[in-house]
Amino acid sequence: MALQQYIRDIQDFPKKGIVFKDITPLLSSPEGTKECLSLLINSLNGKKIDKVVGVESRGFFFATLLAHELNVGFVPVRKPKKLPFTTISASYQLEYGTDTLEIHTDSIKKGDKILIHDDVLASGGTAKAVCELVERLGGEIVQCNFLMELTHLHGRKKLGNKEIFAALTYGEDDNFHIGDMNH
Amino acid sequence: MALQQYIRDIQDFPKKGIVFKDITPLLSSPEGTKECLSLLINSLNGKKIDKVVGVESRGFFFATLLAHELNVGFVPVRKPKKLPFTTISASYQLEYGTDTLEIHTDSIKKGDKILIHDDVLASGGTAKAVCELVERLGGEIVQCNFLMELTHLHGRKKLGNKEIFAALTYGEDDNFHIGDMNH
Repeated sequence: MALQQYIRDIQDFPKKGIVFKDITPLLSSPEGTKECLSLLINSLNGKKIDKVVGVESRGFFFATLLAHELNVGFVPVRKPKKLPFTTISASYQLEYGTDTLEIHTDSIKKGDKILIHDDVLASGGTAKAVCELVERLGGEIVQCNFLMELTHLHGRKKLGNKEIFAALTYGEDDNFHIGDMNH
Repeated sequence: MALQQYIRDIQDFPKKGIVFKDITPLLSSPEGTKECLSLLINSLNGKKIDKVVGVESRGFFFATLLAHELNVGFVPVRKPKKLPFTTISASYQLEYGTDTLEIHTDSIKKGDKILIHDDVLASGGTAKAVCELVERLGGEIVQCNFLMELTHLHGRKKLGNKEIFAALTYGEDDNFHIGDMNH
């Protein structure tokens, strides 16, 4: 089954006018999960990775699998007051107000090669904040990867010259392209 | 390195008087993660599993790995209003007030053999609510497993005759026992 068939459109979630891309059918399929994981791993072209950073909560699903497959450590980036040890934080703009993410200060060592993973690249605010956290700890970002990219929201622009990979790409017309990649 | 050495005690988190068991050192170690995953898998003794249910958020880490290792689907149980499709919910008592968890109605079919995973078994309220959700959808619970069990909080009592496994067990005196299991 083609990868995009595991993604379900939910009308008007979380609010009226939004078509939400539900990844739970993908998660419930071991074949779909394996296929997606292979796409993400292959996009790295064998590049060395020391840690995989996953973003709460939906980013945790594939970030743990990526870390396991690459035989490296997994580092969670979480909402405020969830991580118990010393943290640094970064805030980013939402449509209304701001949101904040935290990372443990001992989770990344200077020079560590980092893969950042989240489920969706939309406007790029979250991913940019995560890049900032990783770089403040001295990590070198090898790639930011995503299950899906919503290209009409231009999230890539916020990430400068970072290598970006998305297993599935959706545009405003909802057409998808598998394995779109840009540096 | 022994498994318990990957768990870090954090004093007074999330509030004064609590010693929090931080699993991020375990997650950041591929060796520790593999060892823990093996313990959890071996505890199943080859029993058939159709789906692994993981509880938001820290339960997601090992639940996705368990599902991948067992080559079955992963089903998230989440906080209210996070799951976009039709859900059922269950509430449970906290020290002050109640909390609620949700599951997608299409995530489990009648007769599915279910493994439930969360990071910690404490007083058992969360696990009991998850069992209730799974059983209302017709799932048959094969085992509830955990990274850690805090035995002095007697969570097992709430789970009736369910098979329970914890990779690490802590008592009031903070002694641990690896691989404690009870039916």
